[in-house]
Amino acid sequence: MNKQILLKSRPVGKPTLENFDIVNAPAVVAHQGEVLVKAQYISVDPYMRGRMSDAKSYVPPFEVGKPIEGGVVGEVIESKHSNYIVGDKVIGALAWQEIQSVPAEKVTKLNSELAPMSYYLGILGMPGLTAYFGLLDIGKPTEGETVVVSGAAGAVGMVVGQIARIKGCRVVGIAGNDEKNSYLKNELHFDEVINYNTTSDMEAAIADACPNGVDIYFDNVGGEISDAVIANINKGARIILCGQISLYNNTEAAIGPRVQPTLLKKSALMQGFIVSNYLSRWPEGVSELAKWLTDGRLKYQQTITRGFENLPQAFIGLFEGKNTGKSLVEVI
Amino acid sequence: MNKQILLKSRPVGKPTLENFDIVNAPAVVAHQGEVLVKAQYISVDPYMRGRMSDAKSYVPPFEVGKPIEGGVVGEVIESKHSNYIVGDKVIGALAWQEIQSVPAEKVTKLNSELAPMSYYLGILGMPGLTAYFGLLDIGKPTEGETVVVSGAAGAVGMVVGQIARIKGCRVVGIAGNDEKNSYLKNELHFDEVINYNTTSDMEAAIADACPNGVDIYFDNVGGEISDAVIANINKGARIILCGQISLYNNTEAAIGPRVQPTLLKKSALMQGFIVSNYLSRWPEGVSELAKWLTDGRLKYQQTITRGFENLPQAFIGLFEGKNTGKSLVEVI
Repeated sequence: MNKQILLKSRPVGKPTLENFDIVNAPAVVAHQGEVLVKAQYISVDPYMRGRMSDAKSYVPPFEVGKPIEGGVVGEVIESKHSNYIVGDKVIGALAWQEIQSVPAEKVTKLNSELAPMSYYLGILGMPGLTAYFGLLDIGKPTEGETVVVSGAAGAVGMVVGQIARIKGCRVVGIAGNDEKNSYLKNELHFDEVINYNTTSDMEAAIADACPNGVDIYFDNVGGEISDAVIANINKGARIILCGQISLYNNTEAAIGPRVQPTLLKKSALMQGFIVSNYLSRWPEGVSELAKWLTDGRLKYQQTITRGFENLPQAFIGLFEGKNTGKSLVEVI
Repeated sequence: MNKQILLKSRPVGKPTLENFDIVNAPAVVAHQGEVLVKAQYISVDPYMRGRMSDAKSYVPPFEVGKPIEGGVVGEVIESKHSNYIVGDKVIGALAWQEIQSVPAEKVTKLNSELAPMSYYLGILGMPGLTAYFGLLDIGKPTEGETVVVSGAAGAVGMVVGQIARIKGCRVVGIAGNDEKNSYLKNELHFDEVINYNTTSDMEAAIADACPNGVDIYFDNVGGEISDAVIANINKGARIILCGQISLYNNTEAAIGPRVQPTLLKKSALMQGFIVSNYLSRWPEGVSELAKWLTDGRLKYQQTITRGFENLPQAFIGLFEGKNTGKSLVEVI
């Protein structure tokens, strides 16, 4: 049996297990120019929620009745392309399927000696590079500035905070439980942490944690947490829009305080981005991140769920604030 | 009699004549280092509304019982500073007062042969430079892009549209009446104009006027007009926040659709600014604008109200959509 997970129906609001279907995949054969890939780790990421809706976004929607697609690392078990041999470790945007045959151009070889394979779905992959380019290219942090990051214990957030520390900034992380926050503070050396679930006045809490105001806000969540941060920005602040996870399951357009008057008064910048804007600079990012990992200046944590069939549950867990660090599934 | 206008009380909502007091100024004497200035033109600008409230902004609030202050051009009628002689034309942020004595550092000499004196309160002054730096430095227009400007018939907007045309862009202006719009289209050669007072579906009207979407939005007004423009932005769009006149008289924080999800999907930038951020590049801006004026590539229009005592009414008129081009008062 070669399992495959399909989008059975489009979620309305928060996704549930009923939106997914686990089936046996059609027979897979590697044709000329293709490689047969056995998945080892499969990534679950918040942005994938957008593709489950039938709305225009920066990536096209998934089709109902077709497999979900996302970041997968695996091993080549049969090759009909001269660049690959059996045993090669590869990464690609592939189907949620145990074994699949894909054109060789759809995958990239990994150096599994530099770091564990799963890291290429996290700190050396999309989330790590999202943190790297978003913070450095848009935020342009300088020593002594204050950086606030929401979703701080997530795959992107924890890298953002650590890079900001490397750049000499004061770092304040916002996350949803004390266990995550104690990890951020004690292991990753964030200067301050705020638990949004137990803080009644977020605006005041951010003001307390940022006595010199907020120079850079790396926003992974949106909504009211962001309103509270934006109320504390300094003149010339930079707000990096990376994710809006608090709004992804909304069924209507979100309403809130208009940010324009604040951005105007503060001569502040707000910039949305997607990491693929930086494709040409990918090698620079991977090399810097790998160097910091090797130096021990950057720590990394993953939440690994075991078992292919647990992919839907691991994905749904992203919206329940369960994971610390990068969430992924190991295909045992 | 040497008239002076005081802020009598802070407006709540839209300013009224009751918020102002016309009085006779205390005796004015030029002390050492000062010049005595007789006002000739006095500027009324939307940003001044912010200073009438008791809220922190980029400039400190006016004090109740003290004179209003703003852009004034006038003539030196007595000088106790070696850099100035009687007859010099000067500009400064001065009191709403017919004759006043000020430290020489508070004024700058004008070249009244390059352009009429009043132009230094408009196209060669704060509004013109606001258009110049906001559009070029933040918007970075390139040939063939589509630029939408709201408040298009105002002192800033009409310069923005003309510079965008000079840079080879398609320009769409939004203003509040057909007379203004016909001026923008026929005299200033805007490609399209939209009257927000007679258009029921602004979002559709902007889509019609911008078949290739919106690359740059120069926002002078905020509120629902801006919501409709932002719904039409392209990937990589730049939104320049210059003014939010539709919100200045609000007594509560404005609520509206959250822009962050759109900015994120479109990798778009939103940047607030104030022209004083560009003080060091002021001469570059004046020189470029003066060159385009001389070449005839840039046209300019003023709405001049005559009579010092009509200053409050001219100011209030800004919020009634009455003026085309720069609004100012001539002190007969």
